[in-house]
Amino acid sequence: MKPTAILLLHCPDSQGIITEVTRFITDNNGNIVYLDQYVDRQDGMFFMRIEWELDGFIIPREKLKDYIQTLYAVRYDMTFNLYFNDVKPRMAIFVSKMSHCLYDLLARYKAGEWNVEIPCIVSNHEDLRYVAEQFGIPYYVWSIKKDHSNKAEVEQAEMELLKKEKVTFIVLARYMQIISEKLISAYPHHIINIHHSFLPAFIGAKPYHQAWERGVKIVGATSHYVTMELDAGPIIEQDVVRISHKDTPESLVLKGRDLEKIVLSRAVTKHIERKILTYNNKTIIFS
Amino acid sequence: MKPTAILLLHCPDSQGIITEVTRFITDNNGNIVYLDQYVDRQDGMFFMRIEWELDGFIIPREKLKDYIQTLYAVRYDMTFNLYFNDVKPRMAIFVSKMSHCLYDLLARYKAGEWNVEIPCIVSNHEDLRYVAEQFGIPYYVWSIKKDHSNKAEVEQAEMELLKKEKVTFIVLARYMQIISEKLISAYPHHIINIHHSFLPAFIGAKPYHQAWERGVKIVGATSHYVTMELDAGPIIEQDVVRISHKDTPESLVLKGRDLEKIVLSRAVTKHIERKILTYNNKTIIFS
Amino acid sequence: MKPTAILLLHCPDSQGIITEVTRFITDNNGNIVYLDQYVDRQDGMFFMRIEWELDGFIIPREKLKDYIQTLYAVRYDMTFNLYFNDVKPRMAIFVSKMSHCLYDLLARYKAGEWNVEIPCIVSNHEDLRYVAEQFGIPYYVWSIKKDHSNKAEVEQAEMELLKKEKVTFIVLARYMQIISEKLISAYPHHIINIHHSFLPAFIGAKPYHQAWERGVKIVGATSHYVTMELDAGPIIEQDVVRISHKDTPESLVLKGRDLEKIVLSRAVTKHIERKILTYNNKTIIFS
Amino acid sequence: MKPTAILLLHCPDSQGIITEVTRFITDNNGNIVYLDQYVDRQDGMFFMRIEWELDGFIIPREKLKDYIQTLYAVRYDMTFNLYFNDVKPRMAIFVSKMSHCLYDLLARYKAGEWNVEIPCIVSNHEDLRYVAEQFGIPYYVWSIKKDHSNKAEVEQAEMELLKKEKVTFIVLARYMQIISEKLISAYPHHIINIHHSFLPAFIGAKPYHQAWERGVKIVGATSHYVTMELDAGPIIEQDVVRISHKDTPESLVLKGRDLEKIVLSRAVTKHIERKILTYNNKTIIFS
Repeated sequence: MKPTAILLLHCPDSQGIITEVTRFITDNNGNIVYLDQYVDRQDGMFFMRIEWELDGFIIPREKLKDYIQTLYAVRYDMTFNLYFNDVKPRMAIFVSKMSHCLYDLLARYKAGEWNVEIPCIVSNHEDLRYVAEQFGIPYYVWSIKKDHSNKAEVEQAEMELLKKEKVTFIVLARYMQIISEKLISAYPHHIINIHHSFLPAFIGAKPYHQAWERGVKIVGATSHYVTMELDAGPIIEQDVVRISHKDTPESLVLKGRDLEKIVLSRAVTKHIERKILTYNNKTIIFS
Repeated sequence: MKPTAILLLHCPDSQGIITEVTRFITDNNGNIVYLDQYVDRQDGMFFMRIEWELDGFIIPREKLKDYIQTLYAVRYDMTFNLYFNDVKPRMAIFVSKMSHCLYDLLARYKAGEWNVEIPCIVSNHEDLRYVAEQFGIPYYVWSIKKDHSNKAEVEQAEMELLKKEKVTFIVLARYMQIISEKLISAYPHHIINIHHSFLPAFIGAKPYHQAWERGVKIVGATSHYVTMELDAGPIIEQDVVRISHKDTPESLVLKGRDLEKIVLSRAVTKHIERKILTYNNKTIIFS
Repeated sequence: MKPTAILLLHCPDSQGIITEVTRFITDNNGNIVYLDQYVDRQDGMFFMRIEWELDGFIIPREKLKDYIQTLYAVRYDMTFNLYFNDVKPRMAIFVSKMSHCLYDLLARYKAGEWNVEIPCIVSNHEDLRYVAEQFGIPYYVWSIKKDHSNKAEVEQAEMELLKKEKVTFIVLARYMQIISEKLISAYPHHIINIHHSFLPAFIGAKPYHQAWERGVKIVGATSHYVTMELDAGPIIEQDVVRISHKDTPESLVLKGRDLEKIVLSRAVTKHIERKILTYNNKTIIFS
Repeated sequence: MKPTAILLLHCPDSQGIITEVTRFITDNNGNIVYLDQYVDRQDGMFFMRIEWELDGFIIPREKLKDYIQTLYAVRYDMTFNLYFNDVKPRMAIFVSKMSHCLYDLLARYKAGEWNVEIPCIVSNHEDLRYVAEQFGIPYYVWSIKKDHSNKAEVEQAEMELLKKEKVTFIVLARYMQIISEKLISAYPHHIINIHHSFLPAFIGAKPYHQAWERGVKIVGATSHYVTMELDAGPIIEQDVVRISHKDTPESLVLKGRDLEKIVLSRAVTKHIERKILTYNNKTIIFS
């Protein structure tokens, strides 16, 4: 794997922008290995993901952000993020009692599917410590009291851990707690949740029971970035499975597990690959 | 096609019921060509669809309903419907201005896909008269005033037409009017609507715009029986299609059309085949 | 709808190419309304679709092809096609006896879904003349003898019709005849067929029966461009539907019809929108 | 979980059969908790799965098989299998080098999703020993020489292990070896394989590369029982995922992994639940 730079940007659309950005890279001897762009013609916004090899690139990587800022960001009113493929994202996993998503994430990690580090798993219960131990990943438990009286304290401890471990994004793998504003603000659009329904249907608790009550013929799962409004953040990925009148709430829970795993993992994959841009509470997902 | 009787029934579950019903048919020399049953173990309810050939069957068809009523209905607290495959259902189609569902229904009708008669098409607009004329089906227009002041009068006329034409069920093929209680009561669970979203998400008007606003990655369509509560009747069929950030409200409308056609036609097929039972605002769909 | 030019091109990848092409348009005062590109990094090929408004564009439309040829095609070893959105493609439909695809195509045409003209329908049977008449489109029948002794003669007549009607592409809507080399050569990658299986499974005759024999759990349909090798041309679109052991060859035929309609129509849509490039017997489909 | 008996049977269809079987159970005081049946009207075959509680059932479980044999099997020319839900199937897993299916199976096992025992994992490579150790399951390696000169000997050892561990069925979780006739004969329709294509397309080696070469727009995976003919046994489950021209053989391999996991696990679930009947090289899957 050759080292590359990945630039994700958006700005008001203007005719020269794609030309400018590609020329900046090619003129400085960068070999472009990925380019995808999208124009939202309704809002007049331009979105781009471009990746190029750093070997032989004239601008040193530590100055690259400055150059882009100076040369383009102001002029084009551009918002951008710059990543390097050899700087791995660091992912914390939050869990409660159910193991299926956690196993799926860790099996992919162990098999080397992802360019990521997982320095820690956080939980409010001891239940899944054995899974963490199977994979040799530190497991931290902070119990949250029923009256939530220690919630602020717990989150403070969690945030210190996240900071210490240089965590860059969080995955809520069926973590059955509401995340506080403070933590959300520390990781804006960098906390991925899996909700076990086809949002916006069946927001909140027990969505499979809600689905069964309503008599739907298809159930779904939704991965999204966490925002302050419950189950209302930018949707990253959804998928569905067909059910029938023969299903019970219990069989829906089982079928749903498989959906949750795959939908969550697809979202995590895209996030790790730096292929997601958020705008107006929606996602642009580069392919 | 040999003449058959079709019995759809449900009752509280009891161990002997399936034995009793099958024995009733075989003992009277009926050749069973279809049998499917389902037990809702949570509610303790038994549901069955059974079909047998009438040739050689000992009980005359005109007495069959009485016999079933006398022998089983009271004893088992059974609700049942009896149909004959050579008595075709008669379907009225209600439309407004969009032709895609209407064409799909009529093309199937013309190709002989369905064992049904379509004696009339009803609309509140002249727009689709040409489609009805292409297929040689009478087209009736009653304009509903914006203030709905003539709505009762219009529905009265419609109901007279439906009665005259011996209509047994109604298909709302993107009919953009609310059906009144009177008409719904005359056709309980016999009016099929197509809603252009994955219910219960995006109830009400402009669901594709709602979907686009929310940034979902999948859109759906839902066919259901009409009840007094808007978009809340028993769901018959749903399907979905994957979309992306590149879609606009306009492209969703186009993609949705294809969904609407197929989801509505699947529901109509099941209804015509007498394979739907409704119970507790849900459907049991026999395969 | 403002007039636009649509340029579809491919050439060996080189770093400056995207910059060059976009600059060519913007420097000449063209407003780009669509740009999508794809690089096949294995073969080192660059593919692009770009569309821009002609109002105010400096180069006159009748000279545009020459300019692109002179300025880029030679230099970049580029293959390109230039279209204008106000010059509608002209589509001939070939049918045999089944109406479902034909109705679906014509219903879309009539509803104005497509920017296309349909000047003629060609068949080897009289069966579907009534459909053509419903829609007021000329219907031509040339019967092909069982021994195929008049096939060359028939195709000659067909090709004269296609020429007279300025047909730009052909849709085989369940046309049950093999197309000859002569006709294929006259419309290279411009004849769209619908095959009623998930190719390359079940090539040739009676694919639903083959699928039923094999006991598959899913059946499919495939639309592709016709080439000299049977059912082996570039695939444009595929879709599938789940089946079960309860299905019979007959029920598969019915379920398959719905697939065939949608898969064929999606392919026709992409072709009309000029969003398909073919390369190495595969398609690049722009979104 | 109350103890139940599960009877899977098939025989030539005759009118009284469903009545007879259900009466046998209810007359002997059995409480039926599951009944599903299917008639193949083309072949005139009757298939049934029936499950009832053993508490209070008059016939002792150890004599049940004899009774069914004596009372029904001969008379109705019936083939049947009798299971008890408290006698767990015992599953051996065969693997080579890829971990994704193995992890998925073991995570479900550990989470208690399945009523099964997994006494051993067998491989021709050491690579996945660490996974077996994570889950505390014995891992046996027998290397097969490139010239296959020790293959008979290896299979002999494997069969002794399977016998010792009372293995009732085998799952080939991406086991990259051909199974010999001897082992197949010992486990007829009790060896489940996952093939990484939508069979019968792309039989044999490197199906994703074959799929990429052909330019398909959808790839699939197929789980089936192993028979003597390669990739031609009864299909249990299939599923597909949409791809595009942007996919490479490598990205297909990754997308395929997710398919393989889910398709294999669904097949294993049905097998464990004793919901699969095989007939004429096809499966009947009860829901």
